[in-house]
Amino acid sequence: MTLNERIAVLREQVRQQRPLIHHITNFVVMNDTANVTLHIGGLPVMAHDRAEVAEMVTAAGALVLNVGTLSPDWIEAMLIAGRRANELGIPIVLDPVGAGATTLRTTSNRRLLEELQISIVRGNSGEIGALAGMGGVVKGVETVVEVDNPLAAAQALARQYQTVVAVTGRRDIVTDGTRVFMVDNGHEWLKTLTGTGCSATTVIAAFAAVERDYPLAAAAALACFGLAAEIAAPAARGPASFKVAFYDAIYHLSADQIRTGARVTLGTE
Amino acid sequence: MTLNERIAVLREQVRQQRPLIHHITNFVVMNDTANVTLHIGGLPVMAHDRAEVAEMVTAAGALVLNVGTLSPDWIEAMLIAGRRANELGIPIVLDPVGAGATTLRTTSNRRLLEELQISIVRGNSGEIGALAGMGGVVKGVETVVEVDNPLAAAQALARQYQTVVAVTGRRDIVTDGTRVFMVDNGHEWLKTLTGTGCSATTVIAAFAAVERDYPLAAAAALACFGLAAEIAAPAARGPASFKVAFYDAIYHLSADQIRTGARVTLGTE
Amino acid sequence: MTLNERIAVLREQVRQQRPLIHHITNFVVMNDTANVTLHIGGLPVMAHDRAEVAEMVTAAGALVLNVGTLSPDWIEAMLIAGRRANELGIPIVLDPVGAGATTLRTTSNRRLLEELQISIVRGNSGEIGALAGMGGVVKGVETVVEVDNPLAAAQALARQYQTVVAVTGRRDIVTDGTRVFMVDNGHEWLKTLTGTGCSATTVIAAFAAVERDYPLAAAAALACFGLAAEIAAPAARGPASFKVAFYDAIYHLSADQIRTGARVTLGTE
Repeated sequence: MTLNERIAVLREQVRQQRPLIHHITNFVVMNDTANVTLHIGGLPVMAHDRAEVAEMVTAAGALVLNVGTLSPDWIEAMLIAGRRANELGIPIVLDPVGAGATTLRTTSNRRLLEELQISIVRGNSGEIGALAGMGGVVKGVETVVEVDNPLAAAQALARQYQTVVAVTGRRDIVTDGTRVFMVDNGHEWLKTLTGTGCSATTVIAAFAAVERDYPLAAAAALACFGLAAEIAAPAARGPASFKVAFYDAIYHLSADQIRTGARVTLGTE
Repeated sequence: MTLNERIAVLREQVRQQRPLIHHITNFVVMNDTANVTLHIGGLPVMAHDRAEVAEMVTAAGALVLNVGTLSPDWIEAMLIAGRRANELGIPIVLDPVGAGATTLRTTSNRRLLEELQISIVRGNSGEIGALAGMGGVVKGVETVVEVDNPLAAAQALARQYQTVVAVTGRRDIVTDGTRVFMVDNGHEWLKTLTGTGCSATTVIAAFAAVERDYPLAAAAALACFGLAAEIAAPAARGPASFKVAFYDAIYHLSADQIRTGARVTLGTE
Repeated sequence: MTLNERIAVLREQVRQQRPLIHHITNFVVMNDTANVTLHIGGLPVMAHDRAEVAEMVTAAGALVLNVGTLSPDWIEAMLIAGRRANELGIPIVLDPVGAGATTLRTTSNRRLLEELQISIVRGNSGEIGALAGMGGVVKGVETVVEVDNPLAAAQALARQYQTVVAVTGRRDIVTDGTRVFMVDNGHEWLKTLTGTGCSATTVIAAFAAVERDYPLAAAAALACFGLAAEIAAPAARGPASFKVAFYDAIYHLSADQIRTGARVTLGTE
């Protein structure tokens, strides 16, 4: 089976298995990521209170931890849900939104990486650089100075925490510290919308719920996400009409489209 | 006046009276339900702090309590607002999102039903089954195993708490334990979007603000909601373009469309 | 340079400088205002915890304080961020959502105006009337009885707190208590959507980040916001399709469109 064929199969498995994706996430993107979860084929739930997260996560296929509008009590809930997920072998996908922008964000993300076994971290190059201690500048939640060598930063972070790191940008990089996937799908319109990084994280979680080879799951998810953006782009008259076409395209994304459209490379070439 | 004519009149009364719908609701759907409130003809306000909910609700035509992203302090605020609403005779509509999925959700919803006089409960079959103790399985916020007999579950719950229960699904059921309405409007696209149940609850609240026959108000609201979905469906190229057309259709929904399109049956035939 | 030419230049400066707009805002509009920030050319960040707001705001071009779903701890965070913004000379734009509707909202907004140096307040006529003690009635978050003399109310409030007041409505008024701008751009569709006032506030903040003549910045922002609505209106088939076209129009809004379309008057004629 070719790589693209495997990606097409994974996308179909998400649709068939309908994994529950438990999000403890930020207020800005909750509606968007719930819809993206449904469109890719999963079931979303947003639940953040310490009184229920350990119970809710037991039914989940994956747990998303996203610190975009964090406060300390939400971090505590993330740790409670995360420990239970680790006990049950449920993959955790971390979106370290704004790591590097404030001390609270950098230290909270480090704490999550230290106290939990995170399966996959998905960030922009500045966020990954901040966590790896390898440069880049984050302003608010956006990278304004790119990391010199995002692959090296991703590999360093992956090795330090025994995790998989996905750096999204013009070319997406996925690595567990050794293996590397490069993903060249995507479109410029994605940068005109809030929460597209968070939505990519959600799609990664849906794929991680059906595929325990996490580098493959992350690369496949990012290829599908970027490919849907490419399919949607011709219908865009601006960011909002792009968003409508993009969500429609995620929903309809088919095995045929993936076979011919996914652009994933093993290694750095 | 025929039933459809009455529904058409109610929809126009919402437009004319512009009732304030006070929501204490979840983070995922706040934007959606505020827009749906405006489109159906009401005025939305979202206010959740204990320091203001009792004052805010005094101006409301109806109060929506929705536990989709609940935490214990929000439940306290719901009780404060609900007690004041009960004193003033303002209808309360409860959306027990995720009842059955966690202990916190099940017990919190039961507490609201016990401590307040709830006018209408709107849930999917699993949520109503969980509260009635009559089966069904809820995963996250979705029913994954249907209740065997949703009408019996709705009637049992309605009788237990002297309330009106609306179970939404392929065929919507509304009952006060004795009278029964069946609503056959709706469209499959609704299931591809997050928060459509919550939005149906909001429309029910807007109708309850202008019609104190709550079974009729709930059935009329669900017919209008489902009919707007049917009107929007031909314009859908996917879930997001459906959503745009659906909201436009709610806004424009006319007496003529309701007279010919509403499909509400009294009793179970 | 004509006034319209200056407005066109400001709009371009927002695009070039990409100011970070730090929002401490309400749950309903976070997604919308983050997108509007991006579309007008800025970078959004939503951060509300006391542990990080003072640090986050240091990178900001402007700070938005919006009390739409307020609670007392968020007000404390607003004060912490606001004091730091004042120390650094970063403009603060206040959106007093629902002032007049509850005691908590009225007193919290007064406290922000008293303890901070607010650069610009943007509200509807009822909110401004409530803060100025000059009439109007607010129901939820909407003015249901207009202030008799909104210009007088705006001027009184501006003088009391040494701030700039923008009252949005059919005709927008901007004043620092002495100078007055009138803005006649806008479209009726804006009233059918939640959060358009909050989004106008966000655009004002983006302009205040690049222009320290705050009455000019506010008037320019409101002209651009209203003009984008006018450009979008012909594509609207209802509120939701209007919103899509409106956001697309904000993104594309060009110097040429502003030169010919902005309708700003100095003084009250």
